[in-house]
Amino acid sequence: MGSQGGGDGEEVNMAAWLVSINTLKIQPFKLPSLGPHDVRVKMKAVGICGSDVHYLKTMRCADFVVREPMVIGHECAGIIEEVGSEVKSLAPGDRVALEPGISCWRCDYCKEGQYNLCPEMKFFATPPVHGSLANQVVHPEDLCFKLPDNVSLEEGAMCEPLSVGVHACRRANVGPETNVLVMGAGPIGLVTMLAARAFGAPRIVIVDVDGYRLSVAKELGADEIVKVSTNMQDVSEEVEQIQKAMGDGVDVTFDCAGFSKTMSTALSATRAGGKVCLVGMGHNEMTVPLTPAAAREVDVVGVFRYKNTWPLCIEFLRSGKIDVKPLITHRFGFSQKEVEEAFETSAHGGSAIKVMFNL
Amino acid sequence: MGSQGGGDGEEVNMAAWLVSINTLKIQPFKLPSLGPHDVRVKMKAVGICGSDVHYLKTMRCADFVVREPMVIGHECAGIIEEVGSEVKSLAPGDRVALEPGISCWRCDYCKEGQYNLCPEMKFFATPPVHGSLANQVVHPEDLCFKLPDNVSLEEGAMCEPLSVGVHACRRANVGPETNVLVMGAGPIGLVTMLAARAFGAPRIVIVDVDGYRLSVAKELGADEIVKVSTNMQDVSEEVEQIQKAMGDGVDVTFDCAGFSKTMSTALSATRAGGKVCLVGMGHNEMTVPLTPAAAREVDVVGVFRYKNTWPLCIEFLRSGKIDVKPLITHRFGFSQKEVEEAFETSAHGGSAIKVMFNL
Amino acid sequence: MGSQGGGDGEEVNMAAWLVSINTLKIQPFKLPSLGPHDVRVKMKAVGICGSDVHYLKTMRCADFVVREPMVIGHECAGIIEEVGSEVKSLAPGDRVALEPGISCWRCDYCKEGQYNLCPEMKFFATPPVHGSLANQVVHPEDLCFKLPDNVSLEEGAMCEPLSVGVHACRRANVGPETNVLVMGAGPIGLVTMLAARAFGAPRIVIVDVDGYRLSVAKELGADEIVKVSTNMQDVSEEVEQIQKAMGDGVDVTFDCAGFSKTMSTALSATRAGGKVCLVGMGHNEMTVPLTPAAAREVDVVGVFRYKNTWPLCIEFLRSGKIDVKPLITHRFGFSQKEVEEAFETSAHGGSAIKVMFNL
Amino acid sequence: MGSQGGGDGEEVNMAAWLVSINTLKIQPFKLPSLGPHDVRVKMKAVGICGSDVHYLKTMRCADFVVREPMVIGHECAGIIEEVGSEVKSLAPGDRVALEPGISCWRCDYCKEGQYNLCPEMKFFATPPVHGSLANQVVHPEDLCFKLPDNVSLEEGAMCEPLSVGVHACRRANVGPETNVLVMGAGPIGLVTMLAARAFGAPRIVIVDVDGYRLSVAKELGADEIVKVSTNMQDVSEEVEQIQKAMGDGVDVTFDCAGFSKTMSTALSATRAGGKVCLVGMGHNEMTVPLTPAAAREVDVVGVFRYKNTWPLCIEFLRSGKIDVKPLITHRFGFSQKEVEEAFETSAHGGSAIKVMFNL
Repeated sequence: MGSQGGGDGEEVNMAAWLVSINTLKIQPFKLPSLGPHDVRVKMKAVGICGSDVHYLKTMRCADFVVREPMVIGHECAGIIEEVGSEVKSLAPGDRVALEPGISCWRCDYCKEGQYNLCPEMKFFATPPVHGSLANQVVHPEDLCFKLPDNVSLEEGAMCEPLSVGVHACRRANVGPETNVLVMGAGPIGLVTMLAARAFGAPRIVIVDVDGYRLSVAKELGADEIVKVSTNMQDVSEEVEQIQKAMGDGVDVTFDCAGFSKTMSTALSATRAGGKVCLVGMGHNEMTVPLTPAAAREVDVVGVFRYKNTWPLCIEFLRSGKIDVKPLITHRFGFSQKEVEEAFETSAHGGSAIKVMFNL
Repeated sequence: MGSQGGGDGEEVNMAAWLVSINTLKIQPFKLPSLGPHDVRVKMKAVGICGSDVHYLKTMRCADFVVREPMVIGHECAGIIEEVGSEVKSLAPGDRVALEPGISCWRCDYCKEGQYNLCPEMKFFATPPVHGSLANQVVHPEDLCFKLPDNVSLEEGAMCEPLSVGVHACRRANVGPETNVLVMGAGPIGLVTMLAARAFGAPRIVIVDVDGYRLSVAKELGADEIVKVSTNMQDVSEEVEQIQKAMGDGVDVTFDCAGFSKTMSTALSATRAGGKVCLVGMGHNEMTVPLTPAAAREVDVVGVFRYKNTWPLCIEFLRSGKIDVKPLITHRFGFSQKEVEEAFETSAHGGSAIKVMFNL
Repeated sequence: MGSQGGGDGEEVNMAAWLVSINTLKIQPFKLPSLGPHDVRVKMKAVGICGSDVHYLKTMRCADFVVREPMVIGHECAGIIEEVGSEVKSLAPGDRVALEPGISCWRCDYCKEGQYNLCPEMKFFATPPVHGSLANQVVHPEDLCFKLPDNVSLEEGAMCEPLSVGVHACRRANVGPETNVLVMGAGPIGLVTMLAARAFGAPRIVIVDVDGYRLSVAKELGADEIVKVSTNMQDVSEEVEQIQKAMGDGVDVTFDCAGFSKTMSTALSATRAGGKVCLVGMGHNEMTVPLTPAAAREVDVVGVFRYKNTWPLCIEFLRSGKIDVKPLITHRFGFSQKEVEEAFETSAHGGSAIKVMFNL
Repeated sequence: MGSQGGGDGEEVNMAAWLVSINTLKIQPFKLPSLGPHDVRVKMKAVGICGSDVHYLKTMRCADFVVREPMVIGHECAGIIEEVGSEVKSLAPGDRVALEPGISCWRCDYCKEGQYNLCPEMKFFATPPVHGSLANQVVHPEDLCFKLPDNVSLEEGAMCEPLSVGVHACRRANVGPETNVLVMGAGPIGLVTMLAARAFGAPRIVIVDVDGYRLSVAKELGADEIVKVSTNMQDVSEEVEQIQKAMGDGVDVTFDCAGFSKTMSTALSATRAGGKVCLVGMGHNEMTVPLTPAAAREVDVVGVFRYKNTWPLCIEFLRSGKIDVKPLITHRFGFSQKEVEEAFETSAHGGSAIKVMFNL
């Protein structure tokens, strides 16, 4: 984290929330030295992501395992406190949103514009790399994006989850002619819906098993909502309902849940020549009607994180094309008690969409 | 089949092989009248496709059901006998390969360059449209492609299966930097391999359960062959074998079989950011690790038939970049006995790759 | 115009405005018979385009020469009066906007999704094909697009010029990250600006020599306007002004004028890796700094008419993403006197943007 | 050149050929220290490029001016002598070809996969950065590409000019269906022709004013050659000759000369919907019929150097799809006298295509 060479070697001990043996403790950690192209950022807003909760509960997420105490958190924004000797675009006092991943810039993926697939990526709170739920972090200048006056630090932190939706819309090539279906109205379903609208989608139908989530989606701008079951037998009937709700071909479906049923629905509901973008990561193995979909040239595209999304997210927030403020449902401070409450709130779902720390 | 208007109304009775109640009979059928933009073609070479065998055995293929006697066959080439009043590019005596599908040119798919997805498509031997295993057919001029002197009528008929491989390579964007894995060394796997090579693929590994098929693939130019089992438990070990055989990242995999196991292997063996193209249609439902593949941005692209492939196929044959002659393993005449034998040969596999009628 | 076969052969004499020896005369003309896929449309709104004025004044436009009296006009909307035997999507009484070009659907361009480049295109008011400034026209069903209740017939006629802007935005790949520069604030510059906004362009700068046009552009939503000279020496200074007005890189420039100076400005003002789309057709030959632009990988893309634009234009109008009503500055009836006045008004510019006939 | 941090600070004085006041002198220069991701390469083969000759004669090339003595040369290959502490893929003794440009990996261009447009690029022999006509250079590991046993160091040095052709083919999207026209049969025209063939171009016509160059092009595989004049009046006649030589539509034209006449010919000869790629840099300003080309949607794409081309070039050389050896017409050693002769030979043209130093 932070570039290695050229710093002064001085190390600073900072307070941070570290995951450690199924518990979160505020604890000092060594801040890396400030390289010539790095900045030191005082954290001000940090959101909780599902992966943070995962690490806390299970010490792992996908293939990543926490082996030593690790600072958690990667949705964040703060204020520049110090800049490295070669930093030109930022100065102390600047409010910035942080893109959490530092890629190697030496591999083929980085060179070919797919840095999100870099196998050497160092990413906030992906073991063994520390995250950003800390008083301060050191981060490369080019991954810290200045916020306009009318975009708050909390909104800045929301650029991270929003980036997932933006990257998904880019991969699925959403534009003003794309009728969009979103499977799942959780946080990722909602940011994807907001992103699809900002990319110009004229009509968006969103689907969930939960009536409350659907009502939130409706308020946030879905054209139609469809409540579905978890029962596999209902797929074909629900596909009909969805297509009726769309009233036209479904050009792109985002599966923001990632189960056999949601993916089966997605593959069947999408028009010939359309795309299904698998965003959610419910189950690894799925039993799905892939052949009939392929025979209608319905392509399945995946997403891994994002790349080059912060400037666009900030522009969407600045211009008002996207308003993420309604997604921030709960706010907490940085004390032991509040941090515990925050993670409880995030883990239990209910009315919580995004839980945010204000440091 | 053939445009409706402007013909002289005269109908000709032609001999053809019609599927009827699980049997094939030579039988007269009405040749449609010749429209101004149509040509009448004397059939000379017709190949047997798996779908022909399917129709013969089960009276159906995918969602298409044979309800009335239907002329079978759609891989064909012949000689122009008569041309409509507006035909300019063809003349009697010309040797042509026939593209079998007539699309509507009024729907959005047709207008946007995806005519293969046209819902109004009339396609040789797709019920209720008659096929081309007949003495003569009437077909639109623009779907009859003149063969160069050094391309035989049999090779012309092979443009149809080859088109599947060419369309798959286009959809997967194969070029001189694309390392290609082919799952399945049947007729479609082989034409896809030949097409991939012609598109410039520097390295091709092909996989099958059958040693004989693999030896044919090797002779036809595969760089490496990998023999696999049908056992699901072997996937991860076989993925390793495949990746070792490739010796580099697998950029594109063509699943020309279409089973849970082949697709699981395909999804796991392909490098992050690569593509899996599902060509084969083994099973409708598949149980596959779609989420981990999507999380490496391995996209799944489907193919349905082809579009605009005949000129390129003919160029590949003319220039020698592709040689389809070794694929034609059996030849038959047009008598009742030979037709029955031909279908038997095609259905039973063994050493048969492509069975061809010479009329 | 209209398909040939299958009609009843009955011919109707309709009144229309025909260009003939530098004059416009209302005159009867033969309406073609109604084919099975055709509709007969009573014209209600027809706009005047620069090319109409050209034909009237010079009897030619680009390489097309008027040799016999020809009905003028191609920006139009009307009401269905009669439908052919195979027509399913339209019925008498439907309000429709008409796409003016009938392509052959047999050539490579048509088959590959570039029907706008079809060499056999039959296009309203492109000699020797009659146009639509007539009481009635016969046109293929699939080129007549139903208007929603909240879109007027005049707005329907505006789909034609708007289509130029939409096609230009598609070719230049305008989206929510594309800062757009428009050279020229005439009718085409304005529709291109409106289209770019609807495609999501966050920032648009428009340039003209005329203060009045610029003020209209500002009212219609330009972020910044820049008044320039016609003096070649001013290019570099004006490029600086434009870049300052943009405040960021110019990603895409639309040259809607088409002169050496506007193109030189476009090529120099656009950022490395950006695009210049040449929409306007001022001069054939241009003297421009093409090499330095190419060495910054600034690509030049052209546009010829449009393809598949009506549904999107109508959606933009329906949703209010684009309002073309302010562009319709003058309206005329169908009498000899009014038609003459209308063409005078259109030819003389001044405050006229779009002159519309209400039939 | 070479990363700054982490080296041992030790500086080595190496012998190199520096451009200085219109003369070339062998002179010692400071080799930068070896960073952890750098390698030290003993140069073995260095080619002379037109830009080297330019710098030598005029002390400038395009906007770049030589202000202090600068090592010349950027087409090179050598043998690894020492590797930095973090280098894993290379070891002393490895034979490598060097990609000459080090980009910043912090700007938007780098992050979006267009590192060739990086405004902070440090490029061999582009002032004030030293080049590679030296005994040794220090260069980043990821820009040194290992050569297979069957590719010589001279061929490795040829990857640089070949990369221009490869990048041009990628930008113009050359494939097995692309008929290619090349304007100019100099070194860049020839490598572009070879690259187009390797990308699958079925038919290539090449044009020049010089009969000798054309005869070389024919030997290297051009399907047809067309000798033209420098007279602007001949354009339309020559376009006809070219189209006749092609015998089919020209899909892509590479203008490897870059003059008003070559570009006018290119724009007129290319089919509607085709592309003209401007590779050569003859004149800055051109007078060309840009509007008629744009109105046929003939796009103009530029090239600036290359990106991610070395692996493909090496694969083309390894597989024999491209043979660059016939392009190396002259070889020289590293003495004062030979270096002078080499530059004379390169500057005077004649039968010289590529002049190579063997160190």
